[in-house]
Amino acid sequence: MFSDIENHECVLGMDLGGTKIAVAAVDPKGKILMESDITSPAKDSSMMVEYFIDLARVEFEKYRRKGLEVKAVGVSAAGYILQKEGVLLESPNIAWRNVPLRKIASEVTGLPAFLDNDANCAAAGERFVGATRGVDDFVYLTLGTGVGGGVYVDGRLIRGHRGMAAELGHILIDPDGPMCGCGRRGCLEALASGRALGREASVLAREDRKTVLLEMSKGDPDSITGKMVSRAAEQGDDVALRAFKVWSRYLGMGIVDFIHIFDPDVVVLGGGVSESGDLFINDVREVVSERGIPTLVKDVSIVLSELGNKAGVIGAAAIAWEELGAPTSF
Amino acid sequence: MFSDIENHECVLGMDLGGTKIAVAAVDPKGKILMESDITSPAKDSSMMVEYFIDLARVEFEKYRRKGLEVKAVGVSAAGYILQKEGVLLESPNIAWRNVPLRKIASEVTGLPAFLDNDANCAAAGERFVGATRGVDDFVYLTLGTGVGGGVYVDGRLIRGHRGMAAELGHILIDPDGPMCGCGRRGCLEALASGRALGREASVLAREDRKTVLLEMSKGDPDSITGKMVSRAAEQGDDVALRAFKVWSRYLGMGIVDFIHIFDPDVVVLGGGVSESGDLFINDVREVVSERGIPTLVKDVSIVLSELGNKAGVIGAAAIAWEELGAPTSF
Repeated sequence: MFSDIENHECVLGMDLGGTKIAVAAVDPKGKILMESDITSPAKDSSMMVEYFIDLARVEFEKYRRKGLEVKAVGVSAAGYILQKEGVLLESPNIAWRNVPLRKIASEVTGLPAFLDNDANCAAAGERFVGATRGVDDFVYLTLGTGVGGGVYVDGRLIRGHRGMAAELGHILIDPDGPMCGCGRRGCLEALASGRALGREASVLAREDRKTVLLEMSKGDPDSITGKMVSRAAEQGDDVALRAFKVWSRYLGMGIVDFIHIFDPDVVVLGGGVSESGDLFINDVREVVSERGIPTLVKDVSIVLSELGNKAGVIGAAAIAWEELGAPTSF
Repeated sequence: MFSDIENHECVLGMDLGGTKIAVAAVDPKGKILMESDITSPAKDSSMMVEYFIDLARVEFEKYRRKGLEVKAVGVSAAGYILQKEGVLLESPNIAWRNVPLRKIASEVTGLPAFLDNDANCAAAGERFVGATRGVDDFVYLTLGTGVGGGVYVDGRLIRGHRGMAAELGHILIDPDGPMCGCGRRGCLEALASGRALGREASVLAREDRKTVLLEMSKGDPDSITGKMVSRAAEQGDDVALRAFKVWSRYLGMGIVDFIHIFDPDVVVLGGGVSESGDLFINDVREVVSERGIPTLVKDVSIVLSELGNKAGVIGAAAIAWEELGAPTSF
């Protein structure tokens, strides 16, 4: 392995999440040369920073000793990011606030560092080596616990005035809908996230108790998660499949809005729920084609992410390569 | 006047609407040097093209004879535009389809020509000499018969894959809302256009007949228009003011979505209804501040257009100056 990667140019891609902190050395073609991760101390702000610094330092040294030429660090983090300042303002599931992550990453390694939120990075990753290589106009949606977004317009990631653009989970779908984590009713995230999928199935399982979901959740409908619904639907469970139908309709309604707003070439669906994409993508396409303005929706492809659980580190690396001016699709 | 404008550089800004076709010579500082307009033969496609050609030719010759140095033509048209091809695909209120307007404008004048839709042009006009001079990230909404939009991200107008981006009137606000002209229920346009304002007032006037609106509409609530509501509200009419309240709430809900999506510095409200902006802008600001994610909405200014009914020709000129590479804000 040593000789394999010797003299390879790479960037350090770091993915800071509520569950784990992952790091990888990623070459200019998007190949992961080495990688590693640790469990995230998400509830403790100062430990989170400490783990981040330690992992960056240790891995950077390891990669250099292996003969890798590390050019920069890219950092992907969940939350609101002041992009110009390189500061993470706040995270939904991690305790830290106002952390100058870009400065820290740069100081620890002595390298140029770049920071963006997880969905923007994932979008950059799809364009780098995933479903939208060479595509200049696309909308990326991450369907996980929440719903996040990243948007390329004319070959550039849109970031907005302060770097917080593309909060695509927080557009209104139904003013009478369920409460969203953001405090508003009926956001896309409240209707088309993994959590929403679980909630939708809970409602159905109360009415129709002949479902494997109640075994999975030990008889408690409130404990049904999005992941359980995916597993049950893969087994052909009727309640789970119906939950996906309802969920797909909301997702399709949101996608119609994004197509009307961005006139993209492609819409990419990533995040945990998209791993069960075959269960819902055709329904979503149908909803979009029924509900959208024909002139606008008819030529748009709706596809699944190709990066899966590597979206974080690959995406973090992609924004670094992009900022270094390297070509970002091959 | 002749000596005044001699040797002035200018572009020809043309605004093609359902009511009139307007043209103006606009200098690099956004000053209108000469202007003219004719009534639009909107129902007749071939006459529409003929009038456009005649007006372009006649005015171009006139400006040249006056000593103006015309550098290019900018054309603003309502409808879906294939921006790269310079083709107007279709218009909501004009009979023509698939018209290569850019090519026609260029052939008639022998000059470089540029084409964009009316809302994109109006946004460019605001940045040129209006409410968002020097602002790189803003959302422009035109509140007329319908609702249109134009968006600048990082100093560039977003156009999307085929040039049809920023159809901001067609995002979903309420799936149970009234039918929209696009065939879907509850779009922003169905709830926050001038037409929607009239409809909202009609509903209220049926319940509360002590309103000047029924005099204006000769006793027929269905004939109440957005313009009547503006006039009545300016006179302090209670029904009209309540219609504005309801309407402002929907508009605010849409603006929250756009702020979450684009992280803009400013949101500009233009179009006919915005002429009564003082009647509703504070309500809109309040709705946005109540319903938006605080981190995202708190620093965004919501302001009124400064171009009024000159938005069309000034905007058309602005995209031409922008494409010519001239500075577009002074």
